[in-house]
Amino acid sequence: MKRVALVGTGLIGGSIGLALRSRDVEVVGFDTLPERAHEAVELGALDRVVTGPDACAGVDLAVVAVPVNDVVGAATALLDVGVAVVTDVASVKAPVVHGVEAARADAAGRFVGGHPMAGSEQEGVAGAESRLFEGSAWVLTPTPRTDADAFAAVRSLVDLTGGEAVALDPDEHDALVAMVSHVPQLAASTLMDLAAQRGADHRALLRLAAGGFRDMTRIAAADPAIWPDICVSNRDAIVAALDRYLEALEGIRNVVATGERQGLLEVLERARTARRNLPVGATDASDLVELRVPVADRPGVLAEVTTTAGRLGVNITDVEIAHSTEGRAGVLVITTSREGSRELEAALVSAGYHPAISPIT
Amino acid sequence: MKRVALVGTGLIGGSIGLALRSRDVEVVGFDTLPERAHEAVELGALDRVVTGPDACAGVDLAVVAVPVNDVVGAATALLDVGVAVVTDVASVKAPVVHGVEAARADAAGRFVGGHPMAGSEQEGVAGAESRLFEGSAWVLTPTPRTDADAFAAVRSLVDLTGGEAVALDPDEHDALVAMVSHVPQLAASTLMDLAAQRGADHRALLRLAAGGFRDMTRIAAADPAIWPDICVSNRDAIVAALDRYLEALEGIRNVVATGERQGLLEVLERARTARRNLPVGATDASDLVELRVPVADRPGVLAEVTTTAGRLGVNITDVEIAHSTEGRAGVLVITTSREGSRELEAALVSAGYHPAISPIT
Repeated sequence: MKRVALVGTGLIGGSIGLALRSRDVEVVGFDTLPERAHEAVELGALDRVVTGPDACAGVDLAVVAVPVNDVVGAATALLDVGVAVVTDVASVKAPVVHGVEAARADAAGRFVGGHPMAGSEQEGVAGAESRLFEGSAWVLTPTPRTDADAFAAVRSLVDLTGGEAVALDPDEHDALVAMVSHVPQLAASTLMDLAAQRGADHRALLRLAAGGFRDMTRIAAADPAIWPDICVSNRDAIVAALDRYLEALEGIRNVVATGERQGLLEVLERARTARRNLPVGATDASDLVELRVPVADRPGVLAEVTTTAGRLGVNITDVEIAHSTEGRAGVLVITTSREGSRELEAALVSAGYHPAISPIT
Repeated sequence: MKRVALVGTGLIGGSIGLALRSRDVEVVGFDTLPERAHEAVELGALDRVVTGPDACAGVDLAVVAVPVNDVVGAATALLDVGVAVVTDVASVKAPVVHGVEAARADAAGRFVGGHPMAGSEQEGVAGAESRLFEGSAWVLTPTPRTDADAFAAVRSLVDLTGGEAVALDPDEHDALVAMVSHVPQLAASTLMDLAAQRGADHRALLRLAAGGFRDMTRIAAADPAIWPDICVSNRDAIVAALDRYLEALEGIRNVVATGERQGLLEVLERARTARRNLPVGATDASDLVELRVPVADRPGVLAEVTTTAGRLGVNITDVEIAHSTEGRAGVLVITTSREGSRELEAALVSAGYHPAISPIT
């Protein structure tokens, strides 16, 4: 990867620019706010500002890092001028991916939805950091239309930033981030707002906020500007996840009200075990395996195999399709962590594939 | 303060021991688990283990750092053998303070309830840290029966650990910590538990947990053993605070469901401002004022004046009662931060006092 274009140079776009430039990739870009693109140049996140989509035609890959509602427009403009591969970084994926497919059925194979699961309570390009993505999951959402080469290119981009590529179906992604990202944000902001309201009458209250409260409400300090779009785009999944959370909280409220010590302890013990077992990114490179999956070279296989891995929590460290010299057959070669690879193999067997696993030496 | 006794040498007791010993105070103590007291000696948190309350009779002050349900028993045993001043560190204050007053009406003036607002997800004395309390609020809960000398001694203890003493009525303390400590713990553990349950079917889910989710659920990793006691002791306040939280979350759920962008943005903006304005301990010593409040030397004045300060979020950097040479009159001298001192003065005037403020030079 030699040249990448960034459309949108805020916190995430700027961080991608810094990461890529530290790996000797040339990064050009533009922003709806021209001064923000110039700031990105000053901060070292861009080599230079370009005028718009037309000027990006020759890049290897373009990253759309704009608010979720503007992604489809920006991505189709890039596809239309012939950019080889386009990806985005929006927090909601189904409306974006289905939107691009609906708008450009023929070119949609070159668009791969993406969502780096990393953020910051900083704001704008000034808060950009080259190491923002290191060790974090970066979801890619291939569909049956996705080109394997386009997927491999975006996966390489993730690799250059230090992220860990995890493939998921776009709708499944949206349901999962509702639970681990959108509901936590709303829960933290609601708690902070409520405490501040109570604190208006009891100024001591906020002085009592110790480390636990501070940790729990930290995300409430983030820029709220992106949230109305996210909540509208992912409304159904967020409402469903919030309803589950409300139900669980009502349950714990009733446990407290009735003084059931054992019931309370069980929930807290389960939560503690789960929190201590939260996976912490960063696959050990010495512990990788290669999965070779003979496939008919037909659309849909890439998405099916990679999202099966994603559902099992297995990240994709490398991917390529080795085409056979004749006919439409081929082999999808995926590199993954050893952990989970046997379950992935079993899942693929159930789905009718014939995978072979071998360690990487 | 030359010699302090610790009853209970877990994480909080051990941290107090480390802090005091670093300030050249001799610290003796015991624990219901004798091996834990010996571990505290090995870790430098105790000078030596003593046999029990009887062996503490001559100390200047005893700190009871045992589970909330055991505080009244331990504190009365210490008062009975004549310990000059006794305090505790339990997370719930009304049952403890009222319990000691009910059990020992005559000696209760020497007991001052306390609650350092600092913790750790570590466990036991092995997780103790001498700087655990630095810059954190440490609530004291004087009542109309509290001796001014006993209060001043406990305030000095707080000072030696680097904490900031804030005086609050015991019942008010319990209502406020329900909101900033107990509900956040339950909300974090419930979210973690729910996500883990969903993650059992969708292993990718927990791989997507980025910094915001990790911050928000960090307290769920703490030792749950203390929580059943806390939830039973502070049941009514916790249920009331949880009900307010549930109501607020239902509200935000409906805002999301109806797609009200503006309503959502308002909540998130308010929360962000509040989070960014969370007070961050550590009063600048150069910015202190002295409040001199002429008072009849009668019970209740200390509690009323100091908890009025606490309600306003004003911490008590120093306190003494200057008795006049004749009669029952005297002056309560309180050192506080300049910030809030004018409002404290006004509140005291409304309550019928005649305070005078002067800067400390």
